[in-house]
Amino acid sequence: MAITGRSLVSTMPGPDPATLMAEERRQAKFDPSEMHNIIEGTPEKAQKIMELYQSLERDPVLAPGYADYELSRDLHREQTTARIARMTQYVELELYMDFWRRLNLVTAYDPSLGIRILVNLGLFINCIKGNGTDAQFQYWCVEKEAKFMKQLWGCFGMTELGHGSNAAGVETTATFDEKTDEFVINTPHIGATKWWIGGAAHSATHSSIYARLIIKGKDYGVKTFVVPLRDANHQLMSGVSIGDIGLKMGREGVDNGWIQFSQVRIPRFFMLQKFCKVARDGEVTLPPLEQLSYISLLQGRVGMASDSYRICARFITVAIRYAVGRRQFRSDISGGKQETQLIDYPLHQRRLMPYLALTYAMGVATDRLERQHETVVRELEDAVQKNDKKAIHVSLADTKTLFIDSAALKSTLTWLAEQCITEARQACGGLGYSSYSGFGKSYADWVVQCTWEGDNNVLGMSAGRSILKCVSDVLKKNAKVSGSLLFLTNAKKCVGSEEVLQTEENLNPEMVLKALEVLIVRVSAAALEKAETNKSWDFVSYERVLLSKLRCHHYLLDTFIQTLQGVKEPGLLYALAKVIRLYFMTYLLEHFGREFITYRVLCPQLSKKITDRLVGESCLEVRNQAIPLTDSFQIPDTLLNSAIGNYNGNWYEDYFRVVKTLNDPSKTKAPYSHDLEAMLNRASVSDRQRAEKRF
Amino acid sequence: MAITGRSLVSTMPGPDPATLMAEERRQAKFDPSEMHNIIEGTPEKAQKIMELYQSLERDPVLAPGYADYELSRDLHREQTTARIARMTQYVELELYMDFWRRLNLVTAYDPSLGIRILVNLGLFINCIKGNGTDAQFQYWCVEKEAKFMKQLWGCFGMTELGHGSNAAGVETTATFDEKTDEFVINTPHIGATKWWIGGAAHSATHSSIYARLIIKGKDYGVKTFVVPLRDANHQLMSGVSIGDIGLKMGREGVDNGWIQFSQVRIPRFFMLQKFCKVARDGEVTLPPLEQLSYISLLQGRVGMASDSYRICARFITVAIRYAVGRRQFRSDISGGKQETQLIDYPLHQRRLMPYLALTYAMGVATDRLERQHETVVRELEDAVQKNDKKAIHVSLADTKTLFIDSAALKSTLTWLAEQCITEARQACGGLGYSSYSGFGKSYADWVVQCTWEGDNNVLGMSAGRSILKCVSDVLKKNAKVSGSLLFLTNAKKCVGSEEVLQTEENLNPEMVLKALEVLIVRVSAAALEKAETNKSWDFVSYERVLLSKLRCHHYLLDTFIQTLQGVKEPGLLYALAKVIRLYFMTYLLEHFGREFITYRVLCPQLSKKITDRLVGESCLEVRNQAIPLTDSFQIPDTLLNSAIGNYNGNWYEDYFRVVKTLNDPSKTKAPYSHDLEAMLNRASVSDRQRAEKRF
Repeated sequence: MAITGRSLVSTMPGPDPATLMAEERRQAKFDPSEMHNIIEGTPEKAQKIMELYQSLERDPVLAPGYADYELSRDLHREQTTARIARMTQYVELELYMDFWRRLNLVTAYDPSLGIRILVNLGLFINCIKGNGTDAQFQYWCVEKEAKFMKQLWGCFGMTELGHGSNAAGVETTATFDEKTDEFVINTPHIGATKWWIGGAAHSATHSSIYARLIIKGKDYGVKTFVVPLRDANHQLMSGVSIGDIGLKMGREGVDNGWIQFSQVRIPRFFMLQKFCKVARDGEVTLPPLEQLSYISLLQGRVGMASDSYRICARFITVAIRYAVGRRQFRSDISGGKQETQLIDYPLHQRRLMPYLALTYAMGVATDRLERQHETVVRELEDAVQKNDKKAIHVSLADTKTLFIDSAALKSTLTWLAEQCITEARQACGGLGYSSYSGFGKSYADWVVQCTWEGDNNVLGMSAGRSILKCVSDVLKKNAKVSGSLLFLTNAKKCVGSEEVLQTEENLNPEMVLKALEVLIVRVSAAALEKAETNKSWDFVSYERVLLSKLRCHHYLLDTFIQTLQGVKEPGLLYALAKVIRLYFMTYLLEHFGREFITYRVLCPQLSKKITDRLVGESCLEVRNQAIPLTDSFQIPDTLLNSAIGNYNGNWYEDYFRVVKTLNDPSKTKAPYSHDLEAMLNRASVSDRQRAEKRF
Repeated sequence: MAITGRSLVSTMPGPDPATLMAEERRQAKFDPSEMHNIIEGTPEKAQKIMELYQSLERDPVLAPGYADYELSRDLHREQTTARIARMTQYVELELYMDFWRRLNLVTAYDPSLGIRILVNLGLFINCIKGNGTDAQFQYWCVEKEAKFMKQLWGCFGMTELGHGSNAAGVETTATFDEKTDEFVINTPHIGATKWWIGGAAHSATHSSIYARLIIKGKDYGVKTFVVPLRDANHQLMSGVSIGDIGLKMGREGVDNGWIQFSQVRIPRFFMLQKFCKVARDGEVTLPPLEQLSYISLLQGRVGMASDSYRICARFITVAIRYAVGRRQFRSDISGGKQETQLIDYPLHQRRLMPYLALTYAMGVATDRLERQHETVVRELEDAVQKNDKKAIHVSLADTKTLFIDSAALKSTLTWLAEQCITEARQACGGLGYSSYSGFGKSYADWVVQCTWEGDNNVLGMSAGRSILKCVSDVLKKNAKVSGSLLFLTNAKKCVGSEEVLQTEENLNPEMVLKALEVLIVRVSAAALEKAETNKSWDFVSYERVLLSKLRCHHYLLDTFIQTLQGVKEPGLLYALAKVIRLYFMTYLLEHFGREFITYRVLCPQLSKKITDRLVGESCLEVRNQAIPLTDSFQIPDTLLNSAIGNYNGNWYEDYFRVVKTLNDPSKTKAPYSHDLEAMLNRASVSDRQRAEKRF
């Protein structure tokens, strides 16, 4: 009887995935830490991320663990609160940018924690900053220390039970009472109940709410107000009714609540008055630049695009590591005595490698989007501060572009991330369904990203409509386009029916980018005609969402091409060239194949060749560097928090240890075992029915 | 202050979705209960389903409730056990077919309950029936009453930690000990640990396990054995180690376990010996018809195809009812004072109506698959009983066809159902994410269907390979095809490049069915060439899964056409004609648009017209009957168990009531509130750091 050198007694040699993993790493053509610098944008940012990873991995409160997957709702919220308290220790000391990056990384494994803080700092405080006067910001955020998550805890009271996407339609009223110089906040009916409000159920002391401003019977539309919800003893204020909205599909750590206001009175100062102002006598000054108030919502969208990159990086790493260590069936491919590794099957490569390539495209593009957002916000603040009209005008145009870009990326990437988690989970077979692999909870936590803070379809329609208007202006008015939609300036050259991609030689990133531009213009031109015929934008909503997706991929491919141009090291360049090729062949030419063909941008024979042969070849090339490519995301095991995805690849023992630790096998009977036993050992039907049926 | 006649005090009129719902029903062109008869196949089956629904809805133990969504793992299992006990009261009295139907319906809302019973009755007992002798079946299932879920509870010990899809590769050993006339069952290493075994952790007294038969050092491959796990006191047998595999993404009511055997001895009689037999001296008789042993696994696949129909029916009903009662934005469409109903938006129609049409296609097709399965099983049993060689031969061919059909339908439909639940949830916006709408738990419970009992990709490859072989036989050997693949007999006429669908007039069900047949043949012919060139079936695995999906849709469309031919009543015929048209335009011509075009079956201009105009028109036609079409599924509110999907449409009040009932708003502080308050009211950094930084 042979005893192996491993940690468990075996009577035969067992599987050895760690050796397979080491073998993959020996084939690496580049240094993953150098690749990490490229994905994250700069070596400095990558270094900062590594430092934060180290800090989080070691932090006794913030570090995740497998037991996190087992928490009940109550314990989950208790843990989230403890982690918030721990985060407050950093917010007072760290640089703002560093704290924000920490929050971004924490969110990738504990989205409940992330969103609870983001609602307070990102929505409540940004709302005061964006809509309030300096004095108001100073009062609540600085004096009262809300920006350090101290004294006050804010929630964001926008959505109502009857109003989600349509914020301008909310029905909560804020009626000015001239006699007392107060606003009366009221929830007129069940449909106007504030709903989903994160932090409302238990945490929030204040809420920035959206309500209709009513003065002397006139409705001035929706404005923002700060309404205290709980007093210094954390007791509900009078007139305020709050409840927990209850169990959700995921994000159990978040205390989402509903709020009803019954004639709650607040001072006039509590209306946020950077733009619209109400004087003592009820006179209203309407805002010159109210559109600027929306910029505060963009930070969330930019963040959700980045979240998409990080969650895909996490789970594609797990699935690819598992595919290396898992053998299944003997096949023609390996031909050997042992079963074939999953990762060597062409179908398995076709399932996972495109997502790996996509994740790279997401990485570089969301880094660019973050930088774009920082620039726009900084330049706009500067311009406003200096009251530089021309600079404000330029900034507004940039803000509009950012609005389109962030809407297109947020919606498209959160959807793709949902699909990536699903496919990666299924690629891990049964073990993907075990909570300890991490997929289940992360999926359930993730998918709300597709419907909140701009429902994806609503955002997509909005981005698509802007693109349509832009193309219309170019085609009909010879307008010039600036910003990241610059390429639309050439729209006139793109209409028609010239086939851009005809031969295999055309399949390079630059030509595909060009083809994508042509497709965007042609889809737009057709949609514009259709909208005109039907006299409604709603009849081209399908096309608008399609355009938003195409625009997102244009941003990704464009950024990826720029990134490649800066890479000199041959190993890195080799790998990235394979990755970009697989990305555009699958996520562009295959996914939108029908559109590329029917709009005559891609020739059908070439499309067939792509699917029949080229994608398979490309998948194999990426597969050969797949482990170094996933190692390059540099996610530490602790934060990956997947029992089948650790760096060393030794998942059989890792996983079994987790299962045994969290489910004590020495308890051989369930607490409800007596019910089971009574059922199995029940008397006969006849006896149970008192033998009455004999008659 | 106006007080409405509703049950809540309002100061303004609130939303009134129930009136909108009633309006939809007034537009019905047919009687939903007649439509129900069509979907379910016969009025008798439909009637039986209504009776079972009524029984379940009233049953104090089996009826679901909103509180089900709140259960912890332990309570979920306790509840599932109570429901199993309740089901045992029916199994002893009801006709087998009726009990099976009850189980099928129960599974749609409580899949944990369903699968726990199915593992016992469907896998354990079917395994004994399929692989054991009559004496063995008599012993365990009849004498010991296992078939009534009494005395014994069986689990199905097939998969191992290292072997999921590849059942022939399991490594548990059953070594014959001639001295004692026993088999020694052993788990040689961690990879051979039985894993995921439903019912093992707490319930099972016995397991039918897959293990390698070893006699005198020779490995005879994998056979099945019955191994007792727990004694009459429900204590683990010696040598048997069992543990809970722990938390899962869903199906928390199921006690999945791991099992390790350490030299466990069982009598020779405990090897199931209908086919392979081991004599007292260790001589092995190999089976003539071992392939028949696999037929017992088909019941599960057929059931999962039906499950797909029922879960889609449930959630498309919820999403469409919600879309009627929900208003969002004012738009060009309604033009009125009020916001537009979601269901009137073209994009919303395009998101939901195709799933409604698909659900109809699933309904009629899975009814046919159930009947096909019943026939095959009955005829095979008859033939074997009479030992009629010719009839056995015919039955074997039918079994093979059923194998392909059930593999294609199980894999394709469980995937589509996953997408349907996801899209339906997103179409309900934020409320889709609330547990009380039912989506979250059902999705999490559902998705395991895509990876178990034949992983979808593995099944798809298998079905696709059979289709390829069939086409190859026809093209190269002029073979004749029978059974449901009969259409492949004409394969030779299908190759080439004739475009089948060129004009709008071609878009009728029969022509599209023909086009689909041509596509299947052309994809097959290309794949056969590719497989030959690469000398490997693995290089055409992508094409094999594609063929499996196309074959599934062929089955659906073909059945749907047959169903339509039997309908005479004009209202029903009108609605069904709209439904089938939308089904084939979206799930065939759009989803496989790239393939239809590149294989030159569909002309690109027609494809473009379908997407640009025809699908939108078709969606609108189906939308106009959408409520009667969903009412036709006849799912009672209790079993729908969705607070936003009740029949009357009054979801605002329904939902709010559920939220308040399950989350008592009078408890205004969380149990962990003191942690929150301490965090907010913490001392300054300087004080907390003992003012030491002043130096």
